[in-house]
Amino acid sequence: MERTLIGDLNKKVGESVLVQGWVSVRRDQGKMVFFDFRDRSGSVQGVVLPKSEAIETAKEVRSEYVVGVEGLVNKRPDKNINPEVQNGDIELEVQKLQVLSKAEIPFELGTETNLDTYLDHLPFTLRSQRAKDIFTMQGAILDAYRSSLRAQGFTEFIAPALVGGDAEGGAAAFKVEYFYDKTAFLATSPQFYKQIMVGPFERAFTVAKIFRAEKSATTRHLSEATCLDFEMGFIKDEREPMAVLEQTIKDTVKVISSAHGEIFTRFGVTVPLIPQSIPIFTLKEAQDIVAKEFNRAIEDTLDMAPEDERQICEYVKKNFGSDFVFITRFPTKKRAFYTYEEPSEAPLSRGFDLLFRGLEINSGAQRIHDPEVLIARMRERGLDPEKFSFYLEAFKVGMPPHGGSSTGLERFTARMLELPNVKEATSFPRDINRIDTLLSTDK
Amino acid sequence: MERTLIGDLNKKVGESVLVQGWVSVRRDQGKMVFFDFRDRSGSVQGVVLPKSEAIETAKEVRSEYVVGVEGLVNKRPDKNINPEVQNGDIELEVQKLQVLSKAEIPFELGTETNLDTYLDHLPFTLRSQRAKDIFTMQGAILDAYRSSLRAQGFTEFIAPALVGGDAEGGAAAFKVEYFYDKTAFLATSPQFYKQIMVGPFERAFTVAKIFRAEKSATTRHLSEATCLDFEMGFIKDEREPMAVLEQTIKDTVKVISSAHGEIFTRFGVTVPLIPQSIPIFTLKEAQDIVAKEFNRAIEDTLDMAPEDERQICEYVKKNFGSDFVFITRFPTKKRAFYTYEEPSEAPLSRGFDLLFRGLEINSGAQRIHDPEVLIARMRERGLDPEKFSFYLEAFKVGMPPHGGSSTGLERFTARMLELPNVKEATSFPRDINRIDTLLSTDK
Repeated sequence: MERTLIGDLNKKVGESVLVQGWVSVRRDQGKMVFFDFRDRSGSVQGVVLPKSEAIETAKEVRSEYVVGVEGLVNKRPDKNINPEVQNGDIELEVQKLQVLSKAEIPFELGTETNLDTYLDHLPFTLRSQRAKDIFTMQGAILDAYRSSLRAQGFTEFIAPALVGGDAEGGAAAFKVEYFYDKTAFLATSPQFYKQIMVGPFERAFTVAKIFRAEKSATTRHLSEATCLDFEMGFIKDEREPMAVLEQTIKDTVKVISSAHGEIFTRFGVTVPLIPQSIPIFTLKEAQDIVAKEFNRAIEDTLDMAPEDERQICEYVKKNFGSDFVFITRFPTKKRAFYTYEEPSEAPLSRGFDLLFRGLEINSGAQRIHDPEVLIARMRERGLDPEKFSFYLEAFKVGMPPHGGSSTGLERFTARMLELPNVKEATSFPRDINRIDTLLSTDK
Repeated sequence: MERTLIGDLNKKVGESVLVQGWVSVRRDQGKMVFFDFRDRSGSVQGVVLPKSEAIETAKEVRSEYVVGVEGLVNKRPDKNINPEVQNGDIELEVQKLQVLSKAEIPFELGTETNLDTYLDHLPFTLRSQRAKDIFTMQGAILDAYRSSLRAQGFTEFIAPALVGGDAEGGAAAFKVEYFYDKTAFLATSPQFYKQIMVGPFERAFTVAKIFRAEKSATTRHLSEATCLDFEMGFIKDEREPMAVLEQTIKDTVKVISSAHGEIFTRFGVTVPLIPQSIPIFTLKEAQDIVAKEFNRAIEDTLDMAPEDERQICEYVKKNFGSDFVFITRFPTKKRAFYTYEEPSEAPLSRGFDLLFRGLEINSGAQRIHDPEVLIARMRERGLDPEKFSFYLEAFKVGMPPHGGSSTGLERFTARMLELPNVKEATSFPRDINRIDTLLSTDK
């Protein structure tokens, strides 16, 4: 018999079907055994009657056993109908029950109460409804984000993960033993490569892995993360990449809220609010606002502290009906070396951040396109232009004014569902203590 | 004035426009200067007349200068119309010419005659029509491949690049210095993670980076490559992932041949031939055929040699009108440890390869889903099951029969356009000798 997906059972009332999936719950009521079966399309209740030839097997089967079920799709009597759940009006009367794989589980799925337990058992806990929702959402974000950029004329390319040097000098890079005793590094950003790709394509994007060897164990750091990066040529200033980013965010939110509204409901969070235009504040404006609104002093006027980010987002949500806010005009010296300075407001730059529900999820800027200016800036920062010869060639052969931005996929996903820790928005998170299993030797 | 894309100029005849782009060619004819300008949408011829205020600047501008051009879109006189090229019926009469960036180029674009020169100057040579075509095609393959899998019910996930051990024991893995003097490795495959994802999603796919520390300098090896991997649960045998793969290949070829037919034309290659069903031969059948057809002995009957692959493809193209062929029933011992053995044909396996125009571009199989069988197989191969505890948990908590496959994006792209070297199908190739620049110290 061909397999029927559980999501299609309501079209097969009165028919015999073959269902394949997992046992989510078994309720042994003595003579009869009830099950909740699930597959990728949903869940259904099954019942094994005392006369069924499946009754012996039903007594042996436990949670997470993989089974093949032959049975009859019955309409439930009116009094047993549950309109709140999928297939709440039908029941599968089990005639044959075949065990495809046995299972021994560490605890009931969805009962893990702390993050470490969840992470220790990912091959199991990723099956929870919560985890499935998070990564269904993440897959949809990926698809929607890329589609939006394509629609805006961008070409996708593959950026490398192995790089020759810790190019930016700032972020800590992991070292790799390469051939013939050479040392390579893991990319901390696809920045140089997407700038190079402005040459062939003007508008290029990549979904790339980035690696940070920072000894930070916070709710917002990962050793390995995924970034959604784009870069575009022939811009007047940073407002053009900001507009592209805004469109991409709008398109993404629109697609996922229409396709996955039920996930927002299950997480008890609202679809993100985006007004006609995302509000834009300079760093100074934002800090003046939070100082006034929250009646406190700003400690660091050169950058946004996590508390500044949370509070400006709270303010913007209340006063502008927006879960997003742009912050601009950071000091040039606080940004990456290739950041374009705003001539009329030096020493402030044409860099920007996009905050979403209290957290920076994106950073972008217009970049320097004149190789002489770029080399001078490198020297100011103590970087050796010789080490950047490959990158610099793109500028020497004619580079248009350009800019772009980088969105952290895990942060974006985490704030979308208001997850407290970015690790929950990472299918297999790597951090200072963990690569799948804990790294400490005394575990 | 707002920028007009060169591809839209034919709608603006008689109007004044602003074009921004690169100078592809400058032809100084003394009194007048002719240009070919290009942007991401195409090319147009420009002319600077003697009376134009742009004439002085026009004399200074060289190939690859980035320019802004204000001019009048003129219809060409009939005798000057060239129907063979884009915008062959119009000409841009240049009124103002602004240099946005100067350029100094190592050679004229597209004249590089060997691969090393091309690779030495990628930030420049990626701008050639040939490279743009290759990576336009690659971006389109990526998009089409993912769309096809989505349409077949697959969920995209992000596989990690940093892993805790050289899990498969076979392929050479790069070592990474991790925190606290730990050693991590770069993933040689997302295999374990996509199998784990069968638990939550049944059907999962990932576009992942893989890294191979093999000291091979061939036309088909890369140190860093991109794989298109999927895995699916509840299969009867390997024919189901083969059918999904076949559909994905068909969908991809259909999309790219319809969207980018002109690229196939420029490369002088045909759109790949795919019959109703891609032919399937066992390893033995394939080797018997090439031995007979090409009148030669088979040296290794346990695996396909590169020559076997080329010749079976030649045979299949001629006799079945197909550029693709599946090879099955490889000996289990020649495949990865998790490969399912065909009980009726032991010691042969349920593994398969897909060959495309003479090269293996995909490898797949049904996998072992019983943890006891898997552990026994590990022990046979001298692998310690303790080191696989994370992976094995997925099997202990109930794993359905499953299988999948992995396509090499660069190989797929290379064969699509019949490129002789897979490095040409890699935007920033890494190999034993090169990460952007050559690694040898005596260069």
